[in-house]
Amino acid sequence: MGFIEAKKEILFSAMKTDYKRFGKTELDSMGILFKQNFINSLSGYKSVNLVGTVNKDKIPNLAIFNSIFHVGSNPPLIGMLSRPAVVPRHTLLNIKDIGYYTLNHIKPHFFSRAHQTAAKYNDNQSEFDVVGLKHFFSDDFPAPYVHESSVKIGLQLVEEYTVKSNGTVLIIGEVVEVILPGKAILSDGLIDLGFTETITGSGLDTYYTTSKIARLSHPRIDKDLDIIG
Amino acid sequence: MGFIEAKKEILFSAMKTDYKRFGKTELDSMGILFKQNFINSLSGYKSVNLVGTVNKDKIPNLAIFNSIFHVGSNPPLIGMLSRPAVVPRHTLLNIKDIGYYTLNHIKPHFFSRAHQTAAKYNDNQSEFDVVGLKHFFSDDFPAPYVHESSVKIGLQLVEEYTVKSNGTVLIIGEVVEVILPGKAILSDGLIDLGFTETITGSGLDTYYTTSKIARLSHPRIDKDLDIIG
Repeated sequence: MGFIEAKKEILFSAMKTDYKRFGKTELDSMGILFKQNFINSLSGYKSVNLVGTVNKDKIPNLAIFNSIFHVGSNPPLIGMLSRPAVVPRHTLLNIKDIGYYTLNHIKPHFFSRAHQTAAKYNDNQSEFDVVGLKHFFSDDFPAPYVHESSVKIGLQLVEEYTVKSNGTVLIIGEVVEVILPGKAILSDGLIDLGFTETITGSGLDTYYTTSKIARLSHPRIDKDLDIIG
Repeated sequence: MGFIEAKKEILFSAMKTDYKRFGKTELDSMGILFKQNFINSLSGYKSVNLVGTVNKDKIPNLAIFNSIFHVGSNPPLIGMLSRPAVVPRHTLLNIKDIGYYTLNHIKPHFFSRAHQTAAKYNDNQSEFDVVGLKHFFSDDFPAPYVHESSVKIGLQLVEEYTVKSNGTVLIIGEVVEVILPGKAILSDGLIDLGFTETITGSGLDTYYTTSKIARLSHPRIDKDLDIIG
């Protein structure tokens, strides 16, 4: 089978690096902060988004979340985890009170303001105002979007689970509104995350831009892959 | 408050682009493939990993998954979603039968072989062999790692949930073994995903390398952010 990357291959065994093994004993004996950094970066890149909500007094709230993930396209569902120790609980309370929230992609020109939303502000302070991002309300949606974000997603809460092992709350929302640049949408529906300048993250504090390697054709057992974008 | 990106700011309102709005009506009337591409790329970048398992006959299985996410660091937990329509069910069956599985970061030099594992091979065919990746068994772990991956994670199944809205299965595993280059681990535990050459993905078929913008200090309400890496 002919693979696209074959020519570039460097064998693992030829790499001049030392591999370390961590078993359960070594993982259990890691210091708490070391372990937090290590495990938070272990699962790879994260989808970082700003989550916009309002509380019962209609004060807008904005918080960065880094555990956002695709759940399904039909119905359109996106999941996120709320870990009380890392992000303010205000967001989770607001989502449960109001039933609606927004996800907003982060661009390089406001990544540090996005990061700053994780500081522990009081419930009566809008993180939009404190960090200097503008909120934007569409005509038909009760939660605030981030004006500066290229991709704005309005969600309705549909399911909630509590992870038994650590009490983390898993929220699943149905996408009911999307606002994004028309030019970012390719002819077959894929959103070009390069055009939208969407960034990604690692751990709790590290942010990255991306460069496309390639878009590949649908894999089939009897056909070589093609680069399609 | 002084923000790191302030000088680079370009106001959203000054951008020469047209924004499109999709409400529930427009989302509901999208064609099925267009919607699949659109929603799959809407949540931002994904953590793509190769999942290694064995079946009851000890035949290794390898499949690419793109909904991998951090759940917690203490105990160390990683979640993933199994969508039967997109990836072979073999992986989920094997995880439930054996109780152990591996996650393996993908590097640019084998990204198309990783993508090809999503083709529908029979249960008695090892995707390792078909696509040309080597399996590697550590002394103490029953599931196969990908030899070529820089970051190898061994997990034990601890929780399983079924998402009511679409039948997707959420698997949560506890990290019990990690094998990675010692030099990739920063002094405070963070894994440098640049050093490990870990790639990220979008939609079901697009792959990206990354460039670090910055690592930022812990956000506090009374202190400016610093670049710490």
